[in-house]
Amino acid sequence: MARHKRLVVPGRFQPPHMGHVKLIEYALELADEVIVVIGSAQESHTLENPLTAGERFHLLSLLLNEELKAWKERVYLVPVMDIQMNAVWVQYLKMLLPPFEGVVSGNPLVRILFEEMGYVAYKPPMFKRSLCSGRKIRAMILEGKSEWRDCLPKRLLEELDRIGFAERLKRLSETDEVG
Amino acid sequence: MARHKRLVVPGRFQPPHMGHVKLIEYALELADEVIVVIGSAQESHTLENPLTAGERFHLLSLLLNEELKAWKERVYLVPVMDIQMNAVWVQYLKMLLPPFEGVVSGNPLVRILFEEMGYVAYKPPMFKRSLCSGRKIRAMILEGKSEWRDCLPKRLLEELDRIGFAERLKRLSETDEVG
Amino acid sequence: MARHKRLVVPGRFQPPHMGHVKLIEYALELADEVIVVIGSAQESHTLENPLTAGERFHLLSLLLNEELKAWKERVYLVPVMDIQMNAVWVQYLKMLLPPFEGVVSGNPLVRILFEEMGYVAYKPPMFKRSLCSGRKIRAMILEGKSEWRDCLPKRLLEELDRIGFAERLKRLSETDEVG
Amino acid sequence: MARHKRLVVPGRFQPPHMGHVKLIEYALELADEVIVVIGSAQESHTLENPLTAGERFHLLSLLLNEELKAWKERVYLVPVMDIQMNAVWVQYLKMLLPPFEGVVSGNPLVRILFEEMGYVAYKPPMFKRSLCSGRKIRAMILEGKSEWRDCLPKRLLEELDRIGFAERLKRLSETDEVG
Amino acid sequence: MARHKRLVVPGRFQPPHMGHVKLIEYALELADEVIVVIGSAQESHTLENPLTAGERFHLLSLLLNEELKAWKERVYLVPVMDIQMNAVWVQYLKMLLPPFEGVVSGNPLVRILFEEMGYVAYKPPMFKRSLCSGRKIRAMILEGKSEWRDCLPKRLLEELDRIGFAERLKRLSETDEVG
Amino acid sequence: MARHKRLVVPGRFQPPHMGHVKLIEYALELADEVIVVIGSAQESHTLENPLTAGERFHLLSLLLNEELKAWKERVYLVPVMDIQMNAVWVQYLKMLLPPFEGVVSGNPLVRILFEEMGYVAYKPPMFKRSLCSGRKIRAMILEGKSEWRDCLPKRLLEELDRIGFAERLKRLSETDEVG
Repeated sequence: MARHKRLVVPGRFQPPHMGHVKLIEYALELADEVIVVIGSAQESHTLENPLTAGERFHLLSLLLNEELKAWKERVYLVPVMDIQMNAVWVQYLKMLLPPFEGVVSGNPLVRILFEEMGYVAYKPPMFKRSLCSGRKIRAMILEGKSEWRDCLPKRLLEELDRIGFAERLKRLSETDEVG
Repeated sequence: MARHKRLVVPGRFQPPHMGHVKLIEYALELADEVIVVIGSAQESHTLENPLTAGERFHLLSLLLNEELKAWKERVYLVPVMDIQMNAVWVQYLKMLLPPFEGVVSGNPLVRILFEEMGYVAYKPPMFKRSLCSGRKIRAMILEGKSEWRDCLPKRLLEELDRIGFAERLKRLSETDEVG
Repeated sequence: MARHKRLVVPGRFQPPHMGHVKLIEYALELADEVIVVIGSAQESHTLENPLTAGERFHLLSLLLNEELKAWKERVYLVPVMDIQMNAVWVQYLKMLLPPFEGVVSGNPLVRILFEEMGYVAYKPPMFKRSLCSGRKIRAMILEGKSEWRDCLPKRLLEELDRIGFAERLKRLSETDEVG
Repeated sequence: MARHKRLVVPGRFQPPHMGHVKLIEYALELADEVIVVIGSAQESHTLENPLTAGERFHLLSLLLNEELKAWKERVYLVPVMDIQMNAVWVQYLKMLLPPFEGVVSGNPLVRILFEEMGYVAYKPPMFKRSLCSGRKIRAMILEGKSEWRDCLPKRLLEELDRIGFAERLKRLSETDEVG
Repeated sequence: MARHKRLVVPGRFQPPHMGHVKLIEYALELADEVIVVIGSAQESHTLENPLTAGERFHLLSLLLNEELKAWKERVYLVPVMDIQMNAVWVQYLKMLLPPFEGVVSGNPLVRILFEEMGYVAYKPPMFKRSLCSGRKIRAMILEGKSEWRDCLPKRLLEELDRIGFAERLKRLSETDEVG
Repeated sequence: MARHKRLVVPGRFQPPHMGHVKLIEYALELADEVIVVIGSAQESHTLENPLTAGERFHLLSLLLNEELKAWKERVYLVPVMDIQMNAVWVQYLKMLLPPFEGVVSGNPLVRILFEEMGYVAYKPPMFKRSLCSGRKIRAMILEGKSEWRDCLPKRLLEELDRIGFAERLKRLSETDEVG
């Protein structure tokens, strides 16, 4: 298997969960360093994107503190706003980030865009995604279920409770207008 | 009940109707002055947002001329374009508007965003919204119903007819592309 | 029938097909010159807009090379990004394009916007659109059907195969996230 | 002299001063109503544009309270962000504002843009501008002079002192970087 | 000397002049087809950029009609707005334009950006630029000189007079504010 | 002296130099963690901003590797694009970054904007800035001087040579147009 200097791992992290730890660990097997791109950084306070990029940044670093030893030596966290031009997105990342050699992503669009720019694109294995995904966690909260709490370590659950994540999501679900 | 110097009342006003008059009257009980924010000011000519901000500004002032005595002494009308970053929206309003102390809105998102910035947020009573809402008025027009006309004073109906509101909405409903 | 110096023909061309040739031929009966606006030029790599504006530009010129003699004498191809303000869009086109007298479009929104600015707006006849439309072509590809290939000349099918159009669309259909 | 229903008076109001009162009075001789556009509304905290649009809105209403009787009956204050496309600016104003028939402005660019769109454009007389202009007021403050204070009524000077206008300008003059 | 399928020739064309004809002729020696990018397409009505992109498009086609036989067979004119991110600009052009192999430009920044993306960049010979350049033509008009008229064919001078180019420039020079 | 959890240190880093190391060291005396904001991240390839944000990110991490032991434990590097609304900038940073308590900056504008939002703002001591500043380094390179090389450790000089920093700056100085 190829060994890289640096790979990109983009995600929305709404919210961060154990699947993301697995994903970053997988990328760290492929590369010395990993740049975690916290995408759609301009979005927050919607049902699809409840958390700000800053909150996601903070939660992700708490999660990695718990689950990934000495992560700061090898992982960068970088919030990145959408550019609304898919054909330019990878070049935009190249403008913003230190040199990278490819991407690790479960999203076909991301892999297509990197491949078309001549980068390598890895599809990660699934890590029982059926349970832990941002989409499912948000849906379960709105349905009043609690199984999603198994997807996060205790420290992160505490922080989500402290910032009122579930409550924000429920309040937002009462509307579909922006004012 | 608290008395304020100035409160914000955001809305889309597609189109303005009697519910909006009630809303502004309610805000004027809470504050000396009210800043009515005509939101999503960049939008027009769609099924969700048929009118331009300028048309809404004009219709709203006609409506208030009819229904709210001496409104100009205490009410400002201000068109505001979306900023596409919810977490920054209230600060953006603070940049654009004279000093305000809080908001009156039926939209939970709006109230959350103001509260997180340390402002007071009032939820107005319902004013029989079940009948008069922009969404319902637009839907009734497309279904060929006319009960919505009870939601507006005669003067405003005339103006909506003059600018061809119902006809624009019907023509727009024939498409979903932007060209 | 009125004779014009120059008319605009906006479209998304996802992908270009024989219906577009008919549309441009129709416009060329009405005007000496036609400006084909390749709209939503910032969009690509989505199910609604799989091709970049540059790819559409290239495919459209190949299509016209095949089907419309000496087209370069009378047709301009111009990619145009969306401005996200419908009420300003026609003035924005006026800023970007050489002088024009009106539009030819099957899209009611486009015709409304041109008419409100005082331009003439022609609705083209239907050219058996029921079969050949971008929407239908994209849907058939995703359903594994091949009848859409009758909507394009052989030269264009080859080029679409060369750039991997159908494959891109299928890969994109596996996701709905942007990374 | 022509009589209008509504005219636009654009300005930057950095800060508002007696010259602006004269300008608005002049426009009110020409029209029943005047829309004062507080332009470059996105700008603040620079040497050219020290005040936010909200501060300018607030100061302008204090100034008019002092100097122009019953101004609220006939004057609208509307903050408007720049659109960065001169050829589209007047159409953009048309999108945002109630119907207007022309402009009053000492700025040739503004008059050109309105005239090209078919509006009437009035050039106001000079009102001893040699003394009272935003540019001169800002320059005098930086040079430590105080004659500019004659350009404003006492009430406005107090408010400028309260928000620390002169101090902000002096602090900003120590830098030319944005961070 | 290398032979190319298609090259890009960017410029601002404020206004188009004989130097541009020489530049395009030079590019046509190097490539079968040339894409003339009318840059900074959002700019107009300033001293640096007096003409709209549409006016420049129109004037350029008149100029080529006069001076370059059968130019439409091999030259595309494409207005392109600035993207405000130099590091992404060439990829943005790639998104908008049919496939190209390189650039011809007297501007070092343009050549650097293309070279960094792996394209070939040609520096054109000078064509007595000392006399005919947009900058010099605009300066001479403001100084009341007329030697610049030798830089344009008669047909183009007529059109510049018709649209009031010199007059617009002079009126704009009376101000430095945007309203 | 107050002790903080996290402070922001914004800069442009064109290029990074020893003054920046001192600045970050100073901030690390005041806070457990420091978020270094690489500002104006959209800018590159100009005389004021020759390097991309990605290059600055990379150079800064090399510099800190040389000069600041175990920096990754306590320092985050985050590229941030300008928002063009000073009054909203700090809230925009709050949206993007993990929670912070204030700023360290030599730029008065930055300190004003943080203070107005209720944050603490520290002015760092000068560190012989008279010699090492981005502005002076860029100016010396263009004047053909070499004293600036004392402002950087050997490892960083090598990297600047490798990416052709001085050469890029010199080539850019031959022009002032963007194409």
